[in-house]
Amino acid sequence: MPLMLYALMLLAALLALLLIRNWGEGLTRSEVAVTASAAGQVEVQHRSEVLLHVLLALVVVIVAGQLAARLFAVLKQPPVIGEVLAGIAIGPSLLGALAPQAQAYLLPADVAPYLALVAQLGVILYMFTVGLHLDASVLRERGQAAAAISHASIVVPFVLGAFLALGLFPALAPAGVAFTPFALFLGASMSVTAFPVLARILTDLNMSRSELGVIALASAAAGDATAWCLLAFVVGVAQAEVGGAVLVMLLTALFLLAMIVLVRPVLARIVPWIEQRGLTKGWTSLIFGAMLLSAWIAEGIGVHALFGSFLFGAVIPHNSRVARELPRRFEDIVTVVLLPAFFAYTGMRTQIGLIHGWEDWLWCGAIIAVATLGKFGGSAAAARIAGMSWKESSALGVLMNTRGLMELIVLNIGLDLGVITPRLFAMMVVMALATTLITTPVMHWLGVRGEAGLEPSRPEG
Amino acid sequence: MPLMLYALMLLAALLALLLIRNWGEGLTRSEVAVTASAAGQVEVQHRSEVLLHVLLALVVVIVAGQLAARLFAVLKQPPVIGEVLAGIAIGPSLLGALAPQAQAYLLPADVAPYLALVAQLGVILYMFTVGLHLDASVLRERGQAAAAISHASIVVPFVLGAFLALGLFPALAPAGVAFTPFALFLGASMSVTAFPVLARILTDLNMSRSELGVIALASAAAGDATAWCLLAFVVGVAQAEVGGAVLVMLLTALFLLAMIVLVRPVLARIVPWIEQRGLTKGWTSLIFGAMLLSAWIAEGIGVHALFGSFLFGAVIPHNSRVARELPRRFEDIVTVVLLPAFFAYTGMRTQIGLIHGWEDWLWCGAIIAVATLGKFGGSAAAARIAGMSWKESSALGVLMNTRGLMELIVLNIGLDLGVITPRLFAMMVVMALATTLITTPVMHWLGVRGEAGLEPSRPEG
Repeated sequence: MPLMLYALMLLAALLALLLIRNWGEGLTRSEVAVTASAAGQVEVQHRSEVLLHVLLALVVVIVAGQLAARLFAVLKQPPVIGEVLAGIAIGPSLLGALAPQAQAYLLPADVAPYLALVAQLGVILYMFTVGLHLDASVLRERGQAAAAISHASIVVPFVLGAFLALGLFPALAPAGVAFTPFALFLGASMSVTAFPVLARILTDLNMSRSELGVIALASAAAGDATAWCLLAFVVGVAQAEVGGAVLVMLLTALFLLAMIVLVRPVLARIVPWIEQRGLTKGWTSLIFGAMLLSAWIAEGIGVHALFGSFLFGAVIPHNSRVARELPRRFEDIVTVVLLPAFFAYTGMRTQIGLIHGWEDWLWCGAIIAVATLGKFGGSAAAARIAGMSWKESSALGVLMNTRGLMELIVLNIGLDLGVITPRLFAMMVVMALATTLITTPVMHWLGVRGEAGLEPSRPEG
Repeated sequence: MPLMLYALMLLAALLALLLIRNWGEGLTRSEVAVTASAAGQVEVQHRSEVLLHVLLALVVVIVAGQLAARLFAVLKQPPVIGEVLAGIAIGPSLLGALAPQAQAYLLPADVAPYLALVAQLGVILYMFTVGLHLDASVLRERGQAAAAISHASIVVPFVLGAFLALGLFPALAPAGVAFTPFALFLGASMSVTAFPVLARILTDLNMSRSELGVIALASAAAGDATAWCLLAFVVGVAQAEVGGAVLVMLLTALFLLAMIVLVRPVLARIVPWIEQRGLTKGWTSLIFGAMLLSAWIAEGIGVHALFGSFLFGAVIPHNSRVARELPRRFEDIVTVVLLPAFFAYTGMRTQIGLIHGWEDWLWCGAIIAVATLGKFGGSAAAARIAGMSWKESSALGVLMNTRGLMELIVLNIGLDLGVITPRLFAMMVVMALATTLITTPVMHWLGVRGEAGLEPSRPEG
């Protein structure tokens, strides 16, 4: 288009707009619509504010998390702990202590529920990938050993945790909470194994397909189901609705049964059929739709939504192309963008500064000791009785002591319920980090490793 | 583990817990912590409620959207319109009219801001993939023709839209809004081309790498930048901060310049270096971090965040392995899980029922006619003057008339600002759908098609 014509067009447009404006300003309205202008502006401003804070928090936690992860990888530690620490660093514990205003700008309190939603979606999707990676056939083969170990690894720390509550209750329990829910919650929170972090450590050690790795994964999986049921019961007790808690457990059992007896066989038939036709967008959508439905049911029942997405992933035939290909298509965005939201959210609520004085740190040490003793001791003893060697039993005990992500999720629930104080929450977060950090060094020290090259090393940072 | 031992363990645990309980119930607290119990319970309940509604809405819109998309694919229509219609169907327009209680349960009003955040994140990520797919080198080659066409395709509908405002203002403008911002918004909203939908239609027609397709994409891309600047100006006027609007445009220009002059060359050096080392999780994280930072800057400036993510995708070297591989790793989750949140959110706000009586539908028809005349006429005339054949010019005009997603985004902003009423919003949504729906049939009728097999047919439903 010649430049002249172009300039002419713009000029004509300007002229037309001015004429239209002159004419239009004299018009009157026949309809007096309800003005939503002021409210609308507040709303859009609020939405833009929320987006700004969430985006900035994600940027900071992603970049800081990767730097920390890199450092942790060099130190032969699970990189995910680096990401968790980055989340804690941008919360009140570090940034808030050094530069309170920067922290308040980065993550103001009213952004928390939004960050929580993104975090929840991230955890739901992450647990779906964990479920997809789970080899259910091995779970069934090792079912009995795994079930025994996992129950021992729950019962022992549960009892020890409740015992510790005797000491913690007078010193650290929130007002208005009775002893029983406090002790039960402490027990439940000690019994958790971080399935996803465990899986990641095993992958890093190249042993998620070894005998030991499989039993550890199976025990952790069986344990998680139990632990979440326990937690649901504890939540029920904390809300003084014991009848409701029984209903929750009943419904959970029913849900589990339906997934295994009904959904699994159906998927075993449909999945090969899908694979013949190719994993189109339509099928991918339906799979994700079903996964979200499963998460919705689990959340509706009262156990966490992530239990549903994990379960749905687990009942998809593990050796199918769908189970192998699907994670590749969304794992990255989940671990890279959505999980950091969970780290940021948890960090926002963790106030390490609340632990002050030698007495608090002694309590913190006691929590770590009891948690480790219960989890390590319980599972190692059960494994030894089940016929594994001492070395393997110890390794299993150490692995089961990994708490990471899952513990953080449980602790968040406890804080929400008001069963634990922010101070105890901070101590428990330290415990979760310590028990996770100890895993890899001890595994190296024990000399337990998978065969190199058995698994393709994935770019986990 | 023998069964006896197992039973003994459980029995001992139960006994221990009872003893602990008996002992603990007599304890008193030394610390009276502030009880956050009641507030905490409300919070966690609220969070669980939000998650339940968001999950259910996603399930419904994903499944219904895929069914509709399937139907639309059979009718040789862009499947994305099926998904948009599914979103509208679960809103007040259809489900709300048939079963108001079901609709209120599915998407209560206080869930809207949460759904909005997920929708925004989805659109940001989607625009990043669009940017990654954009062939910037061709954009530069065709830059002049594309710029002329895109400006003509904005100026003409803008003036015509403002002209139409003369008629619409007395009948449909909200109270408290002056003529000028109303007319400017109408003009701006008529000037939008749906870059993503256009890209998708071109892919479906197998012609996104053809001469015509490339010019259409380049014009739409250049047009979008202009349209968003215009929109930023209009938003500024609507908020009676004309000085602010000028600042917005200045900052936008600066941001654009910085991205092209500074970021692009840096990326051109870093990306080959990354490719040699492999696209690890660390690099992926940094790329996403930078993309979110770019989105944050754009949102902070005042143009929409998605402009930033699109721009960052566009400055990544198009022929690099990063640009080709990265989208594969997250496109699915974005189009399958996150964009449906946007469709549901838009559907929630669309009340087709507000358009009643022949007069309203006449206005609606007038809006469609003016929008099409302006966009089709403007770009076709400019293309003809730039030397394209009549057939190609018409095809280009029809393509530029595609509004889909982008128009919906703009309309949402207008509704937020209170510049348009929900009634006018509904009419404009109908216009967006109509102008998009008309594209493919007219393209087929014109007989314009890309060479078959030029592009691998992607599983777009």
